[in-house]
Amino acid sequence: MTITLDATSRSGPAAGSLAALFSPNAVAIIGASDDTRKYGNWIAVQALKGDRPVHLVNRTRATVLGRAAVRSAVSVGSPIDLAVIAVPAAGFEEAVDDALAAGARAIVGISAGLGEAGEEGRRLEERITAKVRAAGARMLGPNCLGVLDHGSGLTLASNEFPVGSIGVISQSGNMALELATLLVDHGLGVSRFASLGNQADLDAADLIEAYAGHEGTAAIAVYCEDFHDGRRFARAAERAAEAGKPVVLLTVGATDASVRNAKSHTGAMVSSGIVVDAACRAAGIEQVSSPAQMAHLLQALVRSRVPRGSRTAVFADGGGQASVASDCAAAQGLEVAEFPAELQAAVAAELPATAAVSNPVDVAGGGEQDIMCFPRVLEQLTASPAVDATLMSGYFGGYGSYGPELAAREIEAARAMAASTAACGGTVVVQTMNWQSAGADALREGGVPVYRGIEEAAWVLGRLARRQAEPATGIPLLPAAATPVRDTGYYPSRALLAGAGIPFIPAAEVSTEEELLGAAAGLSYPLVLKALGDDHKSDRGGVILNIADEPGLLTAWRDVTARLAPPACSVEQMADLSGAVELLVGIRRDPRFGPIVLVGLGGVFAEILRDVRCALGPVSVPQARDLLLSLRGAALLTGARGRAPVDLDAAADVVARLSELAAAHPEIAEIECNPVAAMPGGALALDARIVLG
Amino acid sequence: MTITLDATSRSGPAAGSLAALFSPNAVAIIGASDDTRKYGNWIAVQALKGDRPVHLVNRTRATVLGRAAVRSAVSVGSPIDLAVIAVPAAGFEEAVDDALAAGARAIVGISAGLGEAGEEGRRLEERITAKVRAAGARMLGPNCLGVLDHGSGLTLASNEFPVGSIGVISQSGNMALELATLLVDHGLGVSRFASLGNQADLDAADLIEAYAGHEGTAAIAVYCEDFHDGRRFARAAERAAEAGKPVVLLTVGATDASVRNAKSHTGAMVSSGIVVDAACRAAGIEQVSSPAQMAHLLQALVRSRVPRGSRTAVFADGGGQASVASDCAAAQGLEVAEFPAELQAAVAAELPATAAVSNPVDVAGGGEQDIMCFPRVLEQLTASPAVDATLMSGYFGGYGSYGPELAAREIEAARAMAASTAACGGTVVVQTMNWQSAGADALREGGVPVYRGIEEAAWVLGRLARRQAEPATGIPLLPAAATPVRDTGYYPSRALLAGAGIPFIPAAEVSTEEELLGAAAGLSYPLVLKALGDDHKSDRGGVILNIADEPGLLTAWRDVTARLAPPACSVEQMADLSGAVELLVGIRRDPRFGPIVLVGLGGVFAEILRDVRCALGPVSVPQARDLLLSLRGAALLTGARGRAPVDLDAAADVVARLSELAAAHPEIAEIECNPVAAMPGGALALDARIVLG
Repeated sequence: MTITLDATSRSGPAAGSLAALFSPNAVAIIGASDDTRKYGNWIAVQALKGDRPVHLVNRTRATVLGRAAVRSAVSVGSPIDLAVIAVPAAGFEEAVDDALAAGARAIVGISAGLGEAGEEGRRLEERITAKVRAAGARMLGPNCLGVLDHGSGLTLASNEFPVGSIGVISQSGNMALELATLLVDHGLGVSRFASLGNQADLDAADLIEAYAGHEGTAAIAVYCEDFHDGRRFARAAERAAEAGKPVVLLTVGATDASVRNAKSHTGAMVSSGIVVDAACRAAGIEQVSSPAQMAHLLQALVRSRVPRGSRTAVFADGGGQASVASDCAAAQGLEVAEFPAELQAAVAAELPATAAVSNPVDVAGGGEQDIMCFPRVLEQLTASPAVDATLMSGYFGGYGSYGPELAAREIEAARAMAASTAACGGTVVVQTMNWQSAGADALREGGVPVYRGIEEAAWVLGRLARRQAEPATGIPLLPAAATPVRDTGYYPSRALLAGAGIPFIPAAEVSTEEELLGAAAGLSYPLVLKALGDDHKSDRGGVILNIADEPGLLTAWRDVTARLAPPACSVEQMADLSGAVELLVGIRRDPRFGPIVLVGLGGVFAEILRDVRCALGPVSVPQARDLLLSLRGAALLTGARGRAPVDLDAAADVVARLSELAAAHPEIAEIECNPVAAMPGGALALDARIVLG
Repeated sequence: MTITLDATSRSGPAAGSLAALFSPNAVAIIGASDDTRKYGNWIAVQALKGDRPVHLVNRTRATVLGRAAVRSAVSVGSPIDLAVIAVPAAGFEEAVDDALAAGARAIVGISAGLGEAGEEGRRLEERITAKVRAAGARMLGPNCLGVLDHGSGLTLASNEFPVGSIGVISQSGNMALELATLLVDHGLGVSRFASLGNQADLDAADLIEAYAGHEGTAAIAVYCEDFHDGRRFARAAERAAEAGKPVVLLTVGATDASVRNAKSHTGAMVSSGIVVDAACRAAGIEQVSSPAQMAHLLQALVRSRVPRGSRTAVFADGGGQASVASDCAAAQGLEVAEFPAELQAAVAAELPATAAVSNPVDVAGGGEQDIMCFPRVLEQLTASPAVDATLMSGYFGGYGSYGPELAAREIEAARAMAASTAACGGTVVVQTMNWQSAGADALREGGVPVYRGIEEAAWVLGRLARRQAEPATGIPLLPAAATPVRDTGYYPSRALLAGAGIPFIPAAEVSTEEELLGAAAGLSYPLVLKALGDDHKSDRGGVILNIADEPGLLTAWRDVTARLAPPACSVEQMADLSGAVELLVGIRRDPRFGPIVLVGLGGVFAEILRDVRCALGPVSVPQARDLLLSLRGAALLTGARGRAPVDLDAAADVVARLSELAAAHPEIAEIECNPVAAMPGGALALDARIVLG
């Protein structure tokens, strides 16, 4: 199946299931070594643990690791699907040539010092990649750490990974290792691991696509520094989620420091944080900020259902834990409201008189007295129409330490809890200080995620609830390219935008006093005079507002022309901005993710709130509306403090039209309307600026 | 030493070192039991593990746990310092009487069903507490879980705790247990544990005071739902910190749910989150939101120095980890700036050519090649004047698994890192996926805190930096009480505030048209007319602004008097608010923490920003200034978007004067000036409202 997902997709043979990479019949290790300080040693040791034929290739040694080695892949003499190449950069091209000649359909490039090492290396890497593609093969890396598929018994990486259902794609070996150690805590492991390296051929999108079709993978964990074709990446992740395999992403670029470092690490072109956020919202990718968050969320995504809403029951076996869990839940946007009377009564019927039952529920020693109170209460909560999800907190899993009878009962209780949660289609997330216990394991085995800390349990539940409340908005398609823009002057820009249906205040370009007076006659006072030909006109006193009459206009004209000698001026009607909210609306073309729509509050709020939201462009009017309403200062638009609400649809229409226009002009790096006046009776662009790429 | 810290301190014998509680010569367990479901069994079992004499008291059995038991504490026949009472509530008073008669100087009340169980229980508890105090004894609880002191070998709690240097004070048993399991991960343990219970006599402040003087305690962990005398609590914590024993606090009350639950749990009166925040800032208490955060921060407080500032070197042994650590550090307010050239060169000299050295530092395989590069680079970083703290991230501690030689070298490297950090007086926080390793232990033993996750390591370092940047502001003293206010009408309120030096716009109270015109003659137009006698006057159209002249004034008067029939009106000069920022300034008396100063932005910003800061009152002018500048919208005050900056000192003066006034009037529940106009040329209160308690 071809994966040409959009016009900017890179060419290359179909990635499809990447069978030669993940399930090869035979493997060659080119650069296999006895030197235990070398990657060619580590990977050969791991490779030989599997059942499939492994051929060791070494240019100078007849035996490696006590086995016969050959001088070149072509000397193997039997078919090779996959070649791992771990030779110095200088020998990489020759090794690839050999591997392709030997019939390899997949190459894993371990060798470093290629594309990430500078311009010369980049050119060499491009040439090699072209050869690989021309041969109908695919390449992982170079500068990567290998590949692993527990389903097919493939272990071509330097480290061992625990077996499980998480597909890992990583541009860092240590990140993958760290994630793996964390997954083990959650009773999880790895189905596949692929190290991205320089992504010269196969990139993260290709691998996500291959994982989405992999039966043994339940969720996909990606650490990625460079997204390549960002829309293709996002679309692959969207499809994986649609196939029931949600993607969790850890990336970098929130700071100059991490951008600086990623460039040095893998030569990555790092996208800015708000652009990646926008892509994640569009694609339903769950973004996290650490390996620990990644593991926490993966456990929930693999085990738990997404709740219907955010109404949360807190269920604890200690008063302190009930309170702290309630506060932690609320901090994650979950609602811990008092239960309706019937539910309180139903919970009270299962617990001692000292228990708290209004939400949070505190069993108050009920666990020691009768551990089956846990499943009975949980079933009441899960089955209640007043509860969307339950956050358990406390000691469960520890009762078993009081004796063998209680230990057996605790496992029975855990199984009953998991079974009724599944039967009710409920969402239950558990935190317990006894997180590594038979009781906790029984919960996990039954599909209930269990955490050690209340903060991560509450955070995970908040994320699950957000998945329901804010579903993926989808990756917008780019329109066909329009005739490129060449002139980015103020009037040509205005004309382009006005032609796309964006409303501007009446105005005219004037170069002489005569033209000025003629134009003014067609406008109504008060007027504005703008000097053209300088992007910083307002800073330099080139914008005169609120001109009341013709003498005032002439005074302004003479002042501006004398001071700034502009090539021309614009005379414009002055908008009545009483009741208006100033917005910034802009579109920027990100090198990875294409046109990005930015909206924000302007005027004094811009500085105070620094409140900008962004989305993949183009956006529809309803999407633009949602974007505006997601601003922290959205209350200004909807009528704060007795203000009249502005015409949101009109403002959203400006955003949508501008985004559609920009999407059709790949030559435009940036369009900005600042400000757009959003008013009770409509919206009006008051300025326009276009920057070509 | 008497601990009467302020006027509201409760009476009772001096808490002092509480020697009878923490280091008794002999102990009686009243209610000791053979029934393994009872607390009187659990605590007796633990008590008997110690070396000191333990006397078991049981009303009906001659032997308990195979030892002779007596019917009453007075039958013991030898001196008892401390009595633990674990009998049903109905027998509690008699048991206390017996214990006091037997000479006990400390009582640990395990029995529940007293003060927390309702009004009757509360009265009984008060009577018993009075008896205890009259006998010169002190009581922990009732409704508590016991006490423990590893230094004196006292184990009067149901659970075992790991030995260490953290003094734990908790109003929840499970919270203390959970904290203890977390401390173990960090190589920490407990010096003392005291369960607060109902705090009928000894409260958290008493215990903090006792811990502050305890040699074996290095830091104090408090879980508390009710602060009793909040200022006394804060002052005890402040003194503990001054004695080198910082207090870390976990509390509840951020949500209705936790407040509801704490009332049910311990009958606690819960203080609102922003009030507790204010007390913590004043006292230098570190507030946390989970047991895990508590353990993380305790490790750093016990092991690490507070850094000089926030300039952070990120030092990783993987490119991905270097980037993620940089982003995590920045998210905690730490600055990860590019190193000066000399430092880059010095770091580069210690590492392979592929290493990144500009900040973050990525050793890029240097660890495998030469593990001593870690101490060499760390010493460069720690000794550099451009670096305040170092955040290490990655794999350290794992190299030892490659073989015994490297294992020994890794420990040597760790010791060198710890030693140079100590020698330079530097701050180093380490995250490593190999957090439980000999290398990590060697770092911890050398005084370097080590974490498993990068988020917590970065968070902890952010907290340490904040301790330096925002030191405790101190607990203000309350002034002597002034003559109580009785009349809270608008003019009496204005007069009270004006008498305290708060500037108001000229105004007069008028009841007739004649008075109106007479008063208006002494003012300059435009004027404002306010109907008095109704707190919601502006909502009901009782405030007419911008009255231009006398006819307008008469029209307004006739309209307002006809519609609202107010007892009187206020005619006021209209403030010129161009360039003004509206502030809310209020003082509320919190039942636990006394007068609390609140400042916030008013007008449209109040709704958009919901931006309120608070502090323990009274505040000085510089403190009020800092409070105003800590508002998120502070840029409005200092001159956002070309606005003129307002007179901050004048605004701060209003806040300080109002807070001083309120502090002298304990009968006032609330004073509010809304708005206070902060202007470039001064500040002016435009309204005043007083609510009595």
